Amino acid sequence: MPAPVANTYPAAAVDVMLAEIRFDPQGLVPAIAQQHDSGEVLMMAWMDRNAVIETMTTGRVCYWSRTRRVRWRKGDTSGHIQTLVDFRIDCDGDTLLVLVDQTGVACHTGRHNCFFRAIREGKLREIVPVLVDTEKTGKD
Amino acid sequence: MPAPVANTYPAAAVDVMLAEIRFDPQGLVPAIAQQHDSGEVLMMAWMDRNAVIETMTTGRVCYWSRTRRVRWRKGDTSGHIQTLVDFRIDCDGDTLLVLVDQTGVACHTGRHNCFFRAIREGKLREIVPVLVDTEKTGKD
Repeated sequence: MPAPVANTYPAAAVDVMLAEIRFDPQGLVPAIAQQHDSGEVLMMAWMDRNAVIETMTTGRVCYWSRTRRVRWRKGDTSGHIQTLVDFRIDCDGDTLLVLVDQTGVACHTGRHNCFFRAIREGKLREIVPVLVDTEKTGKD
Repeated sequence: MPAPVANTYPAAAVDVMLAEIRFDPQGLVPAIAQQHDSGEVLMMAWMDRNAVIETMTTGRVCYWSRTRRVRWRKGDTSGHIQTLVDFRIDCDGDTLLVLVDQTGVACHTGRHNCFFRAIREGKLREIVPVLVDTEKTGKD
């Protein structure tokens, strides 16, 4: 299947979406990134108002890093970009679901998704393999 | 396919998981619920420490309601329960992914999932149909 073309939205549609989002007291909203075709949940991160605008306007998914306190366009360092396929909001307006086409891996550890730890035989195990050496690619 | 049997964990495994979770200053962690077989992202809600314990011990998914300030075992009112299939934690320990088998619908609006609003032709549209009248079933 060819990679999808980035989905972008005109300014009026971005405003419609912004009006529906209930940002938290820090001005942030959680955004779940899901691979559009496989359904794999890749990661969860946070967006501020400008990350929403940047994501919807450019079709390249952007987040707000709470630890580094900077906006962060996924893949700018590593090349592991997320191309926007659809931008959805939940019933309460306080969580976003972005359907994406992930280039490379989503997780800074080099795994395809961030949810790679689960209990197996009573122990915490890593259930997703490392695919990329992110010491070499960078870790965004 | 038969419905999966609820996955439950012994106390020692629950403790292993609790030790990995980085609860926020309010003592909460976001939990994404995903239908285990289809990959559909059903909802996102919050768990406190006791909701994690209850979920992992009983195999019935429980959350913490931030608005009502009560623990909330999904489906106790509506019958729309979530049977636990797998309990995963992300790289940073600050987001959970629960794979579930959803009975009925996940959304309090009667839709199968909460992420039913998206932009279509420049307008905010509802892209998931209402399947259940939750005025009759209750809305948990």
